[in-house]
Amino acid sequence: MSDKVSPLAPQSYPLMESVPGVVLATAEAGIKYRGRTDVLFVGLCEGTQAAGVFTRSKCPSAPVEWCRANLGRGGARALVVNSGNANAFTGVKGAAAVAQTADIAARAAGCEPHDVFIASTGVIGEPLAADKFEGVLQDCAARAVPDAWDAAARAIMTTDTFPKYATRKVMIGDCEVALNGIAKGSGMIAPDMATMLAFVFTDAPIAQEALQALIANGADRSFNCVTVDGDTSTSDTLMLFATGEAAKRGAPMISDAADPQLAAFRQALEDLLVELAQWVVRDGEGASKFVTIDVAGAISDDSARRIAMAIANSPLVKTAIAGEDANWGRIVMAVGKAGEPADRDRLAIHFGDIRVATDGERDPAYIEEKVAAVMREQDIGIRVDIGLGEGRARVWTCDLTKEYIAINADYRS
Amino acid sequence: MSDKVSPLAPQSYPLMESVPGVVLATAEAGIKYRGRTDVLFVGLCEGTQAAGVFTRSKCPSAPVEWCRANLGRGGARALVVNSGNANAFTGVKGAAAVAQTADIAARAAGCEPHDVFIASTGVIGEPLAADKFEGVLQDCAARAVPDAWDAAARAIMTTDTFPKYATRKVMIGDCEVALNGIAKGSGMIAPDMATMLAFVFTDAPIAQEALQALIANGADRSFNCVTVDGDTSTSDTLMLFATGEAAKRGAPMISDAADPQLAAFRQALEDLLVELAQWVVRDGEGASKFVTIDVAGAISDDSARRIAMAIANSPLVKTAIAGEDANWGRIVMAVGKAGEPADRDRLAIHFGDIRVATDGERDPAYIEEKVAAVMREQDIGIRVDIGLGEGRARVWTCDLTKEYIAINADYRS
Repeated sequence: MSDKVSPLAPQSYPLMESVPGVVLATAEAGIKYRGRTDVLFVGLCEGTQAAGVFTRSKCPSAPVEWCRANLGRGGARALVVNSGNANAFTGVKGAAAVAQTADIAARAAGCEPHDVFIASTGVIGEPLAADKFEGVLQDCAARAVPDAWDAAARAIMTTDTFPKYATRKVMIGDCEVALNGIAKGSGMIAPDMATMLAFVFTDAPIAQEALQALIANGADRSFNCVTVDGDTSTSDTLMLFATGEAAKRGAPMISDAADPQLAAFRQALEDLLVELAQWVVRDGEGASKFVTIDVAGAISDDSARRIAMAIANSPLVKTAIAGEDANWGRIVMAVGKAGEPADRDRLAIHFGDIRVATDGERDPAYIEEKVAAVMREQDIGIRVDIGLGEGRARVWTCDLTKEYIAINADYRS
Repeated sequence: MSDKVSPLAPQSYPLMESVPGVVLATAEAGIKYRGRTDVLFVGLCEGTQAAGVFTRSKCPSAPVEWCRANLGRGGARALVVNSGNANAFTGVKGAAAVAQTADIAARAAGCEPHDVFIASTGVIGEPLAADKFEGVLQDCAARAVPDAWDAAARAIMTTDTFPKYATRKVMIGDCEVALNGIAKGSGMIAPDMATMLAFVFTDAPIAQEALQALIANGADRSFNCVTVDGDTSTSDTLMLFATGEAAKRGAPMISDAADPQLAAFRQALEDLLVELAQWVVRDGEGASKFVTIDVAGAISDDSARRIAMAIANSPLVKTAIAGEDANWGRIVMAVGKAGEPADRDRLAIHFGDIRVATDGERDPAYIEEKVAAVMREQDIGIRVDIGLGEGRARVWTCDLTKEYIAINADYRS
C-alpha cells in the first residue's frame, strides 16, 4: 500500500449489502507484511458454482494453475486470497504450497480441497510458507460474516492506494439478486508483481457452464479493455461465484448464458466489471489522468480493439497526456503501428469534442485553447475514426508519469 | 537537439574518409529550426544504385511513400534529408511537397526527379514549405564535398543529443571498398515524431536487387533488433547507396547478395548497421543504461526474438534497470506475456554472469551484492535460457527513466 492515494480515487464508496450464501473474514497471516491483513477467506454455501478467466501468461503462477484445473470439477466452497507473496515462479514448492493451502481451507470449510479456489499476489520467486495459514483459516471460517466487504477488498491490496469494490442489484424473473465485486490492481504488474485480481459474488442460481460464458464475455468487455502499462501478470485472475441462494426466493435456475431472463443480469454484471476495471486504471501506478479511447470506423470490432490498445499502450501517447499535450501526431503514430487496416487520409481524431485532425490533415478549424482546456481535465476522451468500416471498440487507460517510474524503479526492499 | 548529452554518448568519433562517388553539403533552409543546419544534400555519381527498408506503419509519411515508389525504378543521383518537419499526415499537400522537393533537387543534380530520394524528420501534421529548398539545394549541389560526414550527421538530428556515424573498409575480391553510414534517432518517436533515419554509402559495385537483399538482411540484424520505447515512427527509413566507383579500381560487379566474394562486405555492413543502431539506443530518450538482451533455447530464432523484444519493451523491466534492481520476476513476467512457447520450470535467467534463477526458481546460490554490482554498470547484459530448443536472438534497449517522461510530457512548443 502506498502512502499517497491516487488523485483518481473514488470520492465515496457504495454500501455493500450481503450476498446470501457468502461470508467473509480477513486475518494477519504474516506472509510478508507486518501490521496489516494479508489473507481473505470467503466461505461459500453448498451448491455454489464458480467460473473464471485467468492470465494468458505462459508462465502462470501456481494458484492460477490450481484454479484452472479445478474449475467445473465440482462446486466451490471457499476462496482464499493472500497478498504479500504471489507464489509465482516457485517451482514444485509452489504447487505444494497451493495444495497445502487448499487442504487447510478444506478442513476449515468442511469440503474437498478441489472445492477451494486460491489466488496469491505479491512478491515473485519467494517460496510461500503455506503452514502460516494453519489455524488462521480455521479461525477465519469460524468468524466469517456476510458484510466484511471493505475489509476483504483491503486484505488483497498490494501497491493499491485505495480498496476497490462495487455492487449491483438486478432482477432475474421476479426475484432480485445481488452482485458484489472486489478487485485489486495498480499497474498490471507493480513492484514485485502486483497483479490484477477480481472476485464477483452473486446469489443468482446459474449453472457452471453458463457462469463461465458470462464471465468470459464480461471480461472481454471490461478487464480486457483496460491497460496501465501493457504488462501482463503471471497471476491475473477474475472469478465469478454464484451461490444459488436466490432460488429459495423464487429465482429461476439458469442453465444458458443466453437465456432472455438473464438480460438485465448480464448488463449489470458487465457494468460492475467495467466499474471494477476502471478502478484498477484509476489506481494505475502514478496515474494523474483517466483516459477513455474510442475507436470507430475500423474494419471490425477486433481491429478497432487492437488499434485502441496500440494507442492506450503507447508510452508516447501516455506521456503526452501526462503533459496535457493534445499531440495527435502520436495518435497517428499509434494507429499506424497497430498494423491494422487504416487509411491515413481518412483518419479523424477528436480530443473530447474537439476535432483536431480530419481527412489525413490537421483540422484547420480547431482552436488550440479549447483543446488545451480538454487536456487539463482529469478524465479525457480520445476518439479516433478510421473511416473504413463499422468496427468499434472502447478501452480505458491512464497517463504515464514520472511517478510511475519512481514507483517501479525503486529498489526491491 | 537537447542541451544535455546522453551519458551513453561516444567518447570519440571515427575519422570518416570519403566514399568515391558521394559528395555532401548541408544548409540552413529555415524549415523550423533557427540558427542550425536542417537540410542535407547528398550528390551521387551516375550509376549509383539504391536500396531501402522503411517503416511498417500503416500511416507512413509522404517521403516514405515517394522512396518506396522510386526504388529500383532507375538509379539514385541525390538524397535530400530535412529535419524540423516530418511531412507526415499532411495529406495531398504532403505528396505535392515531396514532388516539389524532388523537382528542385533534380534540377540541382542534373537528373530525373525519380532519381532523387527524400527523407524528412520533425514535426508531424504541419505542411512542409518545399519552396524553401529553392536555391538552397542548387547551392548545396555546387559546394558539396566528399568529407562533410560530421556536418551531414548533425544536419539530420532532431532530439538527438549527439551525431551518429560509423565507417568500415572491407575487401571485395582484391579491391578495398568503403562503407560510411550516418543515422539519427532517439526514441522511436520523440517529441513531434523524431523518427529513425539511417543512410549508408559504399563505392562497391552492387546491382540493385542484391543491394536490396543486403539491406533487408542487415536491417533485420540491427535496426530491427533495437527498441527504445516500442513505438514506431511514420517515417523510419534505412537506405543503402552503392556508387559502383570501386569498379574503376578493379572491384568485381556483384549481382547476387549471396556471392561468396561479398562475405566480408556483408559482415562489415552488418557490423556498421549494428553500430549505428546501438548509437540510436545509446541516445534513447532519458537513457542511463545500455542493455543487451540475449535469449537462447527458444523453439526458433523468431520465437527468441519475440521473447527478447517483450523483455526489451516491458516498462517494468526497463524501470527496474533504471533503478539498478535485478528484478528477475519482471523478466519472467515478460517471457510469459510474449505468448511464445516457454516452460516456467525450465527458465534460467542471468544478469551479467550471475545466474539469478534456474529451473523455475530463484537460484539458491546467487549472491545479492554481486548482482547489485552488475546492475550498477552502465552496460548491462541479461541472458534468458528458455530451455526448449535452439532458437536464439539478441536485441538492444535502454532503461526507462523519469527523464524519458520529462522529455515526452513537455508541451509541444
